[in-house]
Parts: sequence; structure tokens; C-alpha cells
Amino acid sequence: MSTDPLLDRDAVGIAAAFHAGDASAAEIAEAALARIAARNPVLNAFTDVTADRARARAAALDAARARKEALPPLAAAPFAAKNLFDIAGIATRAGSRINRDLPPATTDATLVARMEAAGGLLLGGLNMGEYAYDFTGENAHDGPSRNPHDTTRMTGGSSGGSGGAVAGGLAAVALGSDTNGSIRVPSSFCGTFGLKPTYGRLSRGHSFPFVAALDHVGPLARSVRDLAAGYDAMQGPDAADPGCARRPAEPVGAGFEAGIAGLRIARLGGWFAQHRLAESDAAMDLVCSALGVTTEAALPEAERARGAAFLITMAEAAEFHLPRLRERPGDFDPAVRDRLIAGALLPAAWLMTAQRFRRWFADQVGSVFRDHDVLLAPATPMPAPRLGTQTVTLDGVEMPLRPNIGLYTQPISFIGLPVVAVPVWPAGRGLPIGVQVIAPPWREDLAMRVAHALEREGIARAPVAPFGA
Amino acid sequence: MSTDPLLDRDAVGIAAAFHAGDASAAEIAEAALARIAARNPVLNAFTDVTADRARARAAALDAARARKEALPPLAAAPFAAKNLFDIAGIATRAGSRINRDLPPATTDATLVARMEAAGGLLLGGLNMGEYAYDFTGENAHDGPSRNPHDTTRMTGGSSGGSGGAVAGGLAAVALGSDTNGSIRVPSSFCGTFGLKPTYGRLSRGHSFPFVAALDHVGPLARSVRDLAAGYDAMQGPDAADPGCARRPAEPVGAGFEAGIAGLRIARLGGWFAQHRLAESDAAMDLVCSALGVTTEAALPEAERARGAAFLITMAEAAEFHLPRLRERPGDFDPAVRDRLIAGALLPAAWLMTAQRFRRWFADQVGSVFRDHDVLLAPATPMPAPRLGTQTVTLDGVEMPLRPNIGLYTQPISFIGLPVVAVPVWPAGRGLPIGVQVIAPPWREDLAMRVAHALEREGIARAPVAPFGA
Repeated sequence: MSTDPLLDRDAVGIAAAFHAGDASAAEIAEAALARIAARNPVLNAFTDVTADRARARAAALDAARARKEALPPLAAAPFAAKNLFDIAGIATRAGSRINRDLPPATTDATLVARMEAAGGLLLGGLNMGEYAYDFTGENAHDGPSRNPHDTTRMTGGSSGGSGGAVAGGLAAVALGSDTNGSIRVPSSFCGTFGLKPTYGRLSRGHSFPFVAALDHVGPLARSVRDLAAGYDAMQGPDAADPGCARRPAEPVGAGFEAGIAGLRIARLGGWFAQHRLAESDAAMDLVCSALGVTTEAALPEAERARGAAFLITMAEAAEFHLPRLRERPGDFDPAVRDRLIAGALLPAAWLMTAQRFRRWFADQVGSVFRDHDVLLAPATPMPAPRLGTQTVTLDGVEMPLRPNIGLYTQPISFIGLPVVAVPVWPAGRGLPIGVQVIAPPWREDLAMRVAHALEREGIARAPVAPFGA
Repeated sequence: MSTDPLLDRDAVGIAAAFHAGDASAAEIAEAALARIAARNPVLNAFTDVTADRARARAAALDAARARKEALPPLAAAPFAAKNLFDIAGIATRAGSRINRDLPPATTDATLVARMEAAGGLLLGGLNMGEYAYDFTGENAHDGPSRNPHDTTRMTGGSSGGSGGAVAGGLAAVALGSDTNGSIRVPSSFCGTFGLKPTYGRLSRGHSFPFVAALDHVGPLARSVRDLAAGYDAMQGPDAADPGCARRPAEPVGAGFEAGIAGLRIARLGGWFAQHRLAESDAAMDLVCSALGVTTEAALPEAERARGAAFLITMAEAAEFHLPRLRERPGDFDPAVRDRLIAGALLPAAWLMTAQRFRRWFADQVGSVFRDHDVLLAPATPMPAPRLGTQTVTLDGVEMPLRPNIGLYTQPISFIGLPVVAVPVWPAGRGLPIGVQVIAPPWREDLAMRVAHALEREGIARAPVAPFGA
């Protein structure tokens, strides 16, 4: 029997099959590499494939199983990492032309190492928007990653390859990063679950930054139990990331199965009820109806929060990239270069106003969480647009598409709230679109409980796209 | 016998006289108010005199003494506060024209309240440079405070009235603030002891800020034991200042008398040995000779630290004052307005570079403190210049005076190190000049031990200037 169909299972399912002896890790690795060989020329999710490493790791797992050793929880589950995570032996390109001239990384990113320690089979590095300054999943140097559910469409950025790899069945779990929405947007466009944890929860150690004040890292996966297993495998302090919280790991375990009895869940109105298209409206209605949510809440000044997130992003990214802008301006994607130059011209006073507002906004949202345990909002205004799309019409106004993809994600990551993006299919077998399940700081478990309730009801699901869709 | 000579004692000495029954608190208050009436027209240290409050407080202390209640440690010691500290019933002008149109403060600054709780007699608010953006002690609205040791000379800023009040015998202790040197500079020019504590140690609650990232508050006094007593009275967490450390008070008590045996003391070279004039050289030689210091240490990139302190100051002050700059530009001191406008034009990237450098510099200096317990540096390059002086020649180059007064103080406050400024008299009965005794974070006690050793040797002293000098 072919091992290939096994790859459509989620990571925990694949690990269970390996545990049960249904397939060897070597067979799983070969099947995964064969899928990449077959599908990646279309999906363009992988930029680097670590075949030798996957085979060596698989052999070690098979040997451990033969010796009847205790197997780690994600044993033989294929995973991959956005190419801003260091993978020893590969230059960490971070979606850029410039960084691929760097020497190969000498160590693995902390999260890559932790996923591997949990049994994961690392398959390689994934396509992403240049320097993560992106919402579309297009890349001027590597070409766009393509949406497995419709390869003429965007994956969403900047973790586009992560969304494409998971939805395309090339990896069970993919690591992404999210500064303004870069895990939640590809989760929405590609129809995967995505966890953007609390700011500081998961280590960014040995990854290439975008905006240190806003960068988060986390997994994309095809089930909530995979999010929980990956999250538990990756939690814990790490000296390699000064922004990583020192609090000890708080494993979710099977806690995501606890159900939603007693949880006060509200739908976000105000800013989060504007600009929507029919698909995001329908997705929100589906989710709220399934959860029995009738309450509406509002985040005060959410639009300013988005503006402030833009300002901090622009200023901090520009400062970080100034040496490269000076030395190799011609090697940037011209659109990214323009954004960075604009950021370099921002007055310091604007940045400080944004930073001060951020503290105020976090306080205000803290008050909202006194009355609610979980908040719901769309992840994106629209499902995946066609590649190359430049504008979108929202509330009757034609606007540039790219910066407006993150309308709903930016105000949430701005203050570091944990979010599970859940994939909903309002048009049945059409395109997916994501809903953000938002929890108070350090309460990823609450978001996972709600996400899993939706998964159990069949409202949220993340199937592998039929190849050739 | 007149109570007046008692006012030349330090705060602990005045409190002891009150304890002993040598004078009533009412007599002390009247003598202090009489001195202010006689001397302040010349010294211009006080902008607000709280005579009624001082008398009421004195009456309460006398009543408590009559009832043989336990008396607080600084009972009946006259003190005053730079006019950026809130005093209930008085508009907190912060040296500005604009702020005196604000409604009167409804509460006292935390440090004012704590000094009063320790028995201090509050006499009023003290002259300062506009919005603390100053090193000279000159003020365009209230006129310059004048140096009691030579009234044609500067007090130094921005806590100029604080230095003048203490050196002029108008108050035993004065509260000041120090962002780039504003306690240490007037201590140097006026010949007082001054404590700029570790960043976050003393509460800025209910004071008018200048640069939140760099603002410190602390006492100026005529003895180390007064610094210690005031510091102990004012320590402890305070929710009214989000930047105030939550660590509990660590009272110095009589620890400043512990001597310096075993302390590894070094003189700072490099940046701190450049730009000096004969007086600061002589002061450093006097101090190092008295302490037997022969070791030299260096802070790497101290000049960049000063530049970064300027950038953060300019950017943060501009952002804070933008609404006032827009609404009442004509009511600023034109020189301060120019500085603020320049700050408003700084690019955000410069600010962020400065902030990142700050963390690097703090780490580097942390390493220096592995080999040394206390570091010595001049407080100012020169003793008090004549009022109105615009330039100074340092190392043969004529430079603007004002910004260069803080040459040696800025790199130290930039990373929040605790400093005791000690007044030294290299020309005998001429003008004083200060030396910075610098300790690692949270080790004010070490700086006080060294300062007290110098005081005991007669090298450091802070006499009240003969009135009319």
C-alpha cells in the first residue's frame, strides 16, 4: 500500500500511524519528498528541501522504534519552516535576494530544533514575502507561492509557503511568523489552522527578524490537536530570544478538548464589522451560529491601533534594514524598498506616539476581556484573491489590496494577543476564509478550545487540497 | 538666641536640634521663611513659597513633640522641591510660561509627600530651566537662579533653584530631577551633594516629565547623611509612576559610614579625561589622591552614549511637547522651542538606533563593573560660568557652552546608573566643582560610602555660602 495517502492525515495522525507500525519513518519521509517533487513545481511552497536530513532523521526514528524506545509525540510527522528560521547548513534567505549571499546558518532556529526533538521530520525551508514585509505570498525573487485550493490565487503572506505546504499536503505542520497577520492571513487564504501565540510566548531565537516589537512565531496545521501538540513541543523560555518570556511552559495537552461551556464569547463589531465582503460576513455568521454567540463587543480605536501598528512596523523595519538599503538598494523587491524608504523618513515623534498609544490600547482591551473570554473577528476581509491583484473594493471604495489584507489582523497582533485562525468554508467546496479566535494574553488554551469546538462541529476544517485543483 | 544660624546645619542636624528642644519647629519655619524673604530676591531660587503650609506643619510637629510622640527622622528640617513636582494648591509650572496657566495641583508629588511624612517642612517650589531642557539654571520667564557662591554665576540646570536653595541655606534638602545631568550639574556649580539614584528607584509620581525614558528624581543636600536620610525617606514602589521599580525599599541607614575598605575604585579615563579644564582636573586629582585611587577604567563608546542620550532626549521631549508647540509656540523660551522643533524632525530610525545602542552600552558598562565597584568622573568640565555665557573653549576648540556642560553626566544617566555628586574645592575658598561617584545599578549605598569617605576627609563639603558672596 502506498504511504502517500497517510500524508493527508494531520501530524498527530501520522505519528500515530508510525507508532502503530503502519508505516516506517523512512517510508513517510520518502513519500513526503516524492510529494514535494511532484507538487512543489506548481505550489512553489518550498525554497529549500532538506532531503538528506529528513532521511537521516527518519532512519534514527525507525531505529529507535526497532529498539522499542519511547517515541516522541510527533515522531515521523513531516514539518517545514518559513525560510526566515535558521536551518543549519542553509543560508537563511528570509525571502530576500540579499540574504541568500549570507553564509549558511550554523545552528537551527530554536523552534526547528524543538519540533525535531519532538519527533518531527524537517523537510526544508518555505517561501515567504521578502523580509516578511508582505500580505500576499508573492515574492519577487522566488516567484509566488500558489494556493493549493486554486493555484491561480494567492497563498497570503508573508508565511505564504507555510500555508501552501500545509494545505497542499506537503507538510503536516509549518512554522510561520506573524508581525501584522502573516500566520493568520495565509491560514485564511489557504484554509489551515494557524496559531499566533501571545507576544513573547514562543522563541524567535535564530530567526531573521522583521519588527522585533511585533514579531511572533507559531505553527500552521490541519487540526487543532496539531496546533496544540506543536505549541506544547515548542513552548518554554529561550535565552536566544531576549523577547521570549521567562515563564515556564504551560502545556495545553488535551485541554483544547474541554469544550466551550461557560466561556463568554463575543463577536467583534465596530471596525471588525466594516470593510467586509460577503465571504467574511458569511464565515462570521457560520461560526457565531455554531457557537451560539449573540453578544457583540468592540475594541475602542481599533482603526488607530492598525495605524499605529503600521507606523511601528515601518519605522522599525526601516531602521533594521538601513544598512542593506544603503549597500544593496537594487537587490530589494522595489515595492519593499519603497516601503522601507518611506519608513526611514518617519519622524521619531510619530513612532513614540504610536508606542504610547499601544500601551493605552492594551489597557483598554484588557478591560474588554473582563466581560468576555474569547473574541471573534474575521481574519481577512476576503478569501484568496488572484495572484497579481492590485486593488480591492471595500464598502464601495477601491483601495490598494496588499495593505488592506491585514485590516483585521493588525489591531490584534499590535498588542500581542493570542489568536487561533480557523478555516471556514462559507461557500461549501469553494475557497476557505479564516476567522480569528482571540483570547487574552497567555490564554492560548481558550482560543484552542473554541477552535476545537468549531472543528468538532465540522464548521472549521483544513483538508489537503486535491492536487491539481 | 536667633534660630537663623541653625539653618546652616544639615537636615539631620536641624532635626536633631528640634528633637533636643534647641528650637521649635515654628521657630525653624519662621527663620527659614525670613531667610527666603531676605535672600531669595537675590538668589531667585524659589518661585513659590508655601509659608502657610510650612507654619501649619511646624505647629503640628511642635504639638507632637509636646505630646512626646515619636518624631520622624527629618522632623522640622526645611526642604523644597523643583517646581516640576506637584504641590497641592499650586500650578506645576515646570519652569514654563505655559504650565502656569494650568489649574493648581490637587495632590502632592509622591516624593514631596514622603519627605513631609518624614518630618520635612515644605517651603515651596524652586526655579528651574524651562521644562527641564536646560543645563544653565537660566529661565526666560522667571529669570535665572543665581549661584550663592557668586551671584554673577550660573547655578547650573535644570535644577538650578534646587542647587541655589541648598547652597544658599534656604533649604536643607531640595528635590531635583536629572535627565542628562540636572541634579549633578547644579550640585557641581553650587557645591552641594546630589544623588541621582538608579533609574526607577525613586518615584516620579505626580511630577511633570521631560523624557520618561531618562528622567530620574532625587535630593540635593549639604551632607551625605542628609542624602541618605532623604533617600531612605523617599524609597519604595509607587503605582503613580509606571517606571518606578517594584522592588522594596533598601534603606541605606548608617551604611554610608561603612568606609571604603575593600572597594575597588577607579577613575574613568577616555572620554572622561578629555575636554577638561584645570578645575575639573584638579578636583579629580584631589579626590583620587584622597581615596588612594590609581586605577583607570574606560567606558567604551562613551561619546556615542552621549550622542544617543541627546537623540532620545530630543525625540522624546519633542513628542511630548508637540501639542504645546502647535498651540502656544510663542509662549516657549525661543531657545527651548528651537530644540523641540529640531527634535520633532528627527527620523524614527535614529531614535531606534539610539535605543538599541543603549542596551549594548548598558551591557558593556555592566562588564566594567565586574572589575570595579565604583567609578569616578568629573561632574562638569568647568565650575559655574558667569550668567549669560554662550561659549566655552575645551581642548582649544570654542564650543557652545550650554550643551557641553553635560559632557560627563549624560553618558552615565543614559543607562540609569546611580551617582552621588560630591562638591570639591580645588581652589580652596573659590568656586566648587563636582565629582561623580558612580555605582552599579541599585548600589546607591556604594556611592554614598565613597562620598562620605571624602566628606570625612574634608575633601568634599557643602557649606552654606555667606550671604552676599
